[in-house]
Amino acid sequence: MTTIAVCQLELSIGDLAANAAATERAVAQAAAQDADLVVIPELSDTGYVFASAAEARELASPVAGHPALRRWQELAGRHRTVIAGGFCELGSDGLLYNSAAVVDESGTLAGADLIAAPVNWPAAAVPAGERPAEVVKVQASASTNGVFIAVADRCRDERGVSWVGGSLIAGPSGYPLAGPVLADQPAVLTARCDLAAAADKRITAHNDVLADRRPGLYGPVTGEHATGQPVADAR
Amino acid sequence: MTTIAVCQLELSIGDLAANAAATERAVAQAAAQDADLVVIPELSDTGYVFASAAEARELASPVAGHPALRRWQELAGRHRTVIAGGFCELGSDGLLYNSAAVVDESGTLAGADLIAAPVNWPAAAVPAGERPAEVVKVQASASTNGVFIAVADRCRDERGVSWVGGSLIAGPSGYPLAGPVLADQPAVLTARCDLAAAADKRITAHNDVLADRRPGLYGPVTGEHATGQPVADAR
Repeated sequence: MTTIAVCQLELSIGDLAANAAATERAVAQAAAQDADLVVIPELSDTGYVFASAAEARELASPVAGHPALRRWQELAGRHRTVIAGGFCELGSDGLLYNSAAVVDESGTLAGADLIAAPVNWPAAAVPAGERPAEVVKVQASASTNGVFIAVADRCRDERGVSWVGGSLIAGPSGYPLAGPVLADQPAVLTARCDLAAAADKRITAHNDVLADRRPGLYGPVTGEHATGQPVADAR
Repeated sequence: MTTIAVCQLELSIGDLAANAAATERAVAQAAAQDADLVVIPELSDTGYVFASAAEARELASPVAGHPALRRWQELAGRHRTVIAGGFCELGSDGLLYNSAAVVDESGTLAGADLIAAPVNWPAAAVPAGERPAEVVKVQASASTNGVFIAVADRCRDERGVSWVGGSLIAGPSGYPLAGPVLADQPAVLTARCDLAAAADKRITAHNDVLADRRPGLYGPVTGEHATGQPVADAR
């Protein structure tokens, strides 16, 4: 089993030290729960609601030597875990990037059974009794692709923007294993995940979420059976 | 405004007359609520849980002269509406097809602002307090693509298979306008829909669900910014 943690963080726009401290506290808390992977939000180093491109540019750094990535690598090593998070990147092309990375002690990692999503989801109106559409989309994506998805969102207003606070860990069936938080407060959620379950894409003996795809239909539909699926080939 | 109706039907496997009567009653009920489009379930003419391919073959008909399609066309004309539903097709290639069609008085129709989904969703275990994953996927698809989706599901057991009973009409924001029913009983749901709203794919002044797609990333990711999005081009 793999223990996944998502950390819903309160970040301060432009306050790199405060954000680093919030990240460090949350990663320590997740590590204390034996997290093998810790997901933190989008733009965890800088905050999100930049007043101008100039402000973002002042806060951005190139990937090589990026202070947040170096700090995450140090944290990953100290706590023997892996960190996925978003950061503000100054590209080698001179453009600014809203980037994300997965960092372990050695600096890199990739996994196909789990999608780690560091997000800042600006809040929008949600009908009474409904889950926010962002959360619904994550559940649907997990189920459609048969994967685990771990989302770390923001909390607390930033320059008039509030957040969904929808941190969650969804399993391959699409149902939450932890969360969604849906509260405007910091939170660390963990779930023990059997990542091998994501390798089994069968729904039933007759259905498989990947093998049953029909890429030929993604383009223009041709032929006489606009939506028909062959159900039997016995004549 | 366009009034959409979805009809959750009880069907009897192999009993074409009973299924035709159930469809006729439901379409009349929807038409009495001024429905401009009526969605009925998958395999509405025959039922779903065939005991064998031979049984399905005996119940199937070619599209040309298909009794269900002719009946729907007559109903559409009588009630001045449009019907979308699933039917059992014997293809000209000799294969059996689980097909769907949209039928109006003249026999055809197409629309890009609405997806009509005639389904038979076999029930599976759902954690307490959760919406079934099938419903969640419909909501996510509506929101992701900014379209209306009208789903007509089955009810009442057929050969040991029970159904989600998840008929619903979702709007472009992903939230239900009517349903989901989530009860094992016949139902006719209607919703007045401003289909023109589906033509506006903007979320904010800076976000557009279609224009913001990056098809170049659907294949293998290349370049140094694995997940980064350019956020500003001012240098």
